[in-house]
Amino acid sequence: MAATLKGNAIVAQSGGPTAVINCSLAGVIQESQKHDAIERLLGSKNGIFGVLNDELFDLNQEDAATVEGLKRTPASALGTTRYKLQDDDYERILDCFKRYNVRYFFFNGGNDSMETCHVVGQLAARENYELRCIGVPKTVDNDLAVTDHCPGYGSVARAITIMTMDAGKDNEASYSTDTVKVVETMGRNTGWIAASTGLAHETEEDAPHLVYLPERPFAAQKFLDDVQGCLDSIGRATIVVSEGLVDENGEYITAQSAADSEFYQDAFGHAQLSGVGDAICKLVEGKLNAKARFNKPGTSQRNCIMAQSKTDAEEAYMVGAAAVEAAVGGETDKMVTLVRESNDPYKCVTGLCPTEQVAAAEKKMPDEYINEAGNGVTEAFIDYVRPLVGDLPKYVRLKRVSA
Amino acid sequence: MAATLKGNAIVAQSGGPTAVINCSLAGVIQESQKHDAIERLLGSKNGIFGVLNDELFDLNQEDAATVEGLKRTPASALGTTRYKLQDDDYERILDCFKRYNVRYFFFNGGNDSMETCHVVGQLAARENYELRCIGVPKTVDNDLAVTDHCPGYGSVARAITIMTMDAGKDNEASYSTDTVKVVETMGRNTGWIAASTGLAHETEEDAPHLVYLPERPFAAQKFLDDVQGCLDSIGRATIVVSEGLVDENGEYITAQSAADSEFYQDAFGHAQLSGVGDAICKLVEGKLNAKARFNKPGTSQRNCIMAQSKTDAEEAYMVGAAAVEAAVGGETDKMVTLVRESNDPYKCVTGLCPTEQVAAAEKKMPDEYINEAGNGVTEAFIDYVRPLVGDLPKYVRLKRVSA
Repeated sequence: MAATLKGNAIVAQSGGPTAVINCSLAGVIQESQKHDAIERLLGSKNGIFGVLNDELFDLNQEDAATVEGLKRTPASALGTTRYKLQDDDYERILDCFKRYNVRYFFFNGGNDSMETCHVVGQLAARENYELRCIGVPKTVDNDLAVTDHCPGYGSVARAITIMTMDAGKDNEASYSTDTVKVVETMGRNTGWIAASTGLAHETEEDAPHLVYLPERPFAAQKFLDDVQGCLDSIGRATIVVSEGLVDENGEYITAQSAADSEFYQDAFGHAQLSGVGDAICKLVEGKLNAKARFNKPGTSQRNCIMAQSKTDAEEAYMVGAAAVEAAVGGETDKMVTLVRESNDPYKCVTGLCPTEQVAAAEKKMPDEYINEAGNGVTEAFIDYVRPLVGDLPKYVRLKRVSA
Repeated sequence: MAATLKGNAIVAQSGGPTAVINCSLAGVIQESQKHDAIERLLGSKNGIFGVLNDELFDLNQEDAATVEGLKRTPASALGTTRYKLQDDDYERILDCFKRYNVRYFFFNGGNDSMETCHVVGQLAARENYELRCIGVPKTVDNDLAVTDHCPGYGSVARAITIMTMDAGKDNEASYSTDTVKVVETMGRNTGWIAASTGLAHETEEDAPHLVYLPERPFAAQKFLDDVQGCLDSIGRATIVVSEGLVDENGEYITAQSAADSEFYQDAFGHAQLSGVGDAICKLVEGKLNAKARFNKPGTSQRNCIMAQSKTDAEEAYMVGAAAVEAAVGGETDKMVTLVRESNDPYKCVTGLCPTEQVAAAEKKMPDEYINEAGNGVTEAFIDYVRPLVGDLPKYVRLKRVSA
């Protein structure tokens, strides 16, 4: 047992918002209040920017009802950023920590955030400044290494799956118009989000009929054959495509205007995509005798409190609280993980792993989760994702007995 | 009191699907079962197509649980169409009715459907075929004359308002990226859907900050000034635009590729739009120092059972049941209307109006519902729309007391 380290704590939220990142914040706040070691909990405005720019909030001043309300408030209540740290920023971070006697740092984000955690932790160690840095996992992309899954994923999966069910019902109802419906999902480099919609495909009639993931190169003719197959068999196709689809050359399937624009490069050098749904529709309309329209829920999918997964919300809280417990207990340079102990009944607990194991890695969909044709998912994936999403709404279909 | 007219009935669903059109179907089915005058209730597959092509379902064969489940199943369970009737179709419709001894016709749709109801009713009268045609109002666009509002509107308004709140929270959280977020809503010629999002704008911080409606010509420079004003005051802008925005010349604000394509003209000659959200983003990025991204929920907004308005669902059921009652009571060539008797407390009952009053008309947003600047709504509109949408989720915002 480590000696009690007394001091202040900072919590920051980084990367893209989610429907449950504020649950993790509530977990950090409420757990911190239970530990005398943490004298004051400060919130950093807009991710690491607040630390760099001395914009810190005293979270002990917040009303208990507001903290409770965080559990049902989407996006990042502290603000977030995608700012990529420069080499001399790390020293400034440590300076801020020293000035505020910060001994605990909870950084809620994805693999970039874990890298920050790791570098800051190492710097503090070199300077003999006692600091406990714990990463709190968060990303709708579900692409973090080590952890079974990421808080934020279950809710975005639930949202996009229900939105796909609704789009599918619309498509099913619409004779003579909109026979092809494309749903464009988030997922820059991995197909976890798009793949989750496979949960809704229980019978041949049920959308989505085709799902395309960045893990498989997009082959236009093969795709058109798939779509024509659906049109021939059930007269329509509801298709889910991940925003990060690439062709055999690794080029994004997207509108040219987007590909050419500097605006679509963010600070991390990841391409900011636009237009894959539109591009797919144009491909279908240009090559097949079908109409095609796309839905692009965009940021509404990752912040959809209506579709917040109960399991996801609870686990997001749990990882926030576990980070505080771990830090107070003496851990540092670790990220809290989710460990699935059992799938049926579903049981998940928290664990810890070195942040550097998460920092550089990106977990793609494994082969056994993608079907052979590369246009859907496997039962193994459905088993993996179902408990994270929870029960879906039950829609009826008429028997349609001929009169 | 009219003499009892015994015979069969047909119900059909037409036009775009909604989150509650199946509630109206449940209302027609369950109310029909209470009246001996209606011997069999038949469902027409894909709107009027089922009548023209002899594709009718015996709805008495459906399980009671399925009929109950319709109340929570989006889109049109019987299938729908946007087919525009030809002159010789009316005679074929009447022929079908005679063959099946159909004496009751319930047509659930918008103004095109009411025109069909009216013409078929007149034809039957000329031929001395006793027939009672009742229109059941339905449209997310809320553009039907006479009725206070349309079933389907409250739910699409609730869905798009919550999606705008969620997009707004995301935008608020995101420092340095996505400072302008555009939400593209449905609404081809009227701004009712886009306008409803005004409900969420309670403080200057709350999205949406700007709302643009087809009722006001879109002036690009004025728009850019509005956006810059938001960026100057709160550092971001969440903007709602209706898909049907037009410029001073009446030209749609949309991607050129869409405007040039024959695919974007449907059978009624209404332009099928695509790309206004994208176009607005390109305008912002081209002219202002800001990033812009759009969400286009598309058909997910009109079929969103998660956001189904309780009032809307109840009223949709009510107009279905009222149509049956009116027809059995001797009425014909009428549409059921919603009559708001009181706003606080909200009380709404059904009425009847001649279908021809609805057939040709399109109800735009009245001037008193649009603010003077043409970029938002008035309190009068908020009072009108609030009871239709119901209570919105409450999201919290931190006090952010400086440390």
